[in-house]
Amino acid sequence: MSDQPTVFTKIINGEIPCFKIHEDEHTFAFLDINPLSPGHTLLIPKEQVATLDKLSDDAAAAIGRVLPRLCRAIVKATGIADYNILQNNGELAHQAVNHVHFHIIPKPDTKTGLGVGWPSGELNKGTASELAESISSGL
Amino acid sequence: MSDQPTVFTKIINGEIPCFKIHEDEHTFAFLDINPLSPGHTLLIPKEQVATLDKLSDDAAAAIGRVLPRLCRAIVKATGIADYNILQNNGELAHQAVNHVHFHIIPKPDTKTGLGVGWPSGELNKGTASELAESISSGL
Repeated sequence: MSDQPTVFTKIINGEIPCFKIHEDEHTFAFLDINPLSPGHTLLIPKEQVATLDKLSDDAAAAIGRVLPRLCRAIVKATGIADYNILQNNGELAHQAVNHVHFHIIPKPDTKTGLGVGWPSGELNKGTASELAESISSGL
Repeated sequence: MSDQPTVFTKIINGEIPCFKIHEDEHTFAFLDINPLSPGHTLLIPKEQVATLDKLSDDAAAAIGRVLPRLCRAIVKATGIADYNILQNNGELAHQAVNHVHFHIIPKPDTKTGLGVGWPSGELNKGTASELAESISSGL
């Protein structure tokens, strides 16, 4: 993690303007400047870390707590009931700003909003137990 | 919301088998049976609600708190540093099971894992203040 403030930290600090929606001790929310659909919102922790695996328990719980409230408010304000939550980690995974951010993206119709590509396979039952245990043991 | 148990509630209750990774008072995690990539995991609240805007504060905070821990454990177990978090609400938004679930999807390369379609536009500065206030007032 860099010590340099990210563009999102600058937004939190008021050094870069935004269309602010919400702020509390741990979190901040504002309209995405390049929305995929009306009401596309970013929810970020004030804690500046690049990826979700680096986020503290307290910041993560605060993000979790406010997320449904924000979704309710966006659904109400836009009148669009369907939406995606997306949070990207790493360049391969489409992350553009190295400060954890959750996209809340209304999905008014098939062409607007997030496009979801779903090249799914089948779980290898022979190795799945070992994989689940390997992840579980790291918790 | 239906009173009928979802397939995920049946998994939580042990009526349908799964490759379990984690369980606590509010949350449950297991391997997706149709993974997009190795380590593709589902994190769900025990509270059975269809969409995130219906989720209680306590369940949402618990989901938020465990999410970074789970990401760390998946990165460690798979050796894949990049990943997407996706949570879909409504049929248009690609939701298949009507019980809130967060996908944690490792992104090992451009062809495997989540495909992200990003048809972004520009925020209409003329109406953005009103939109932000409209969302904010619903919080």
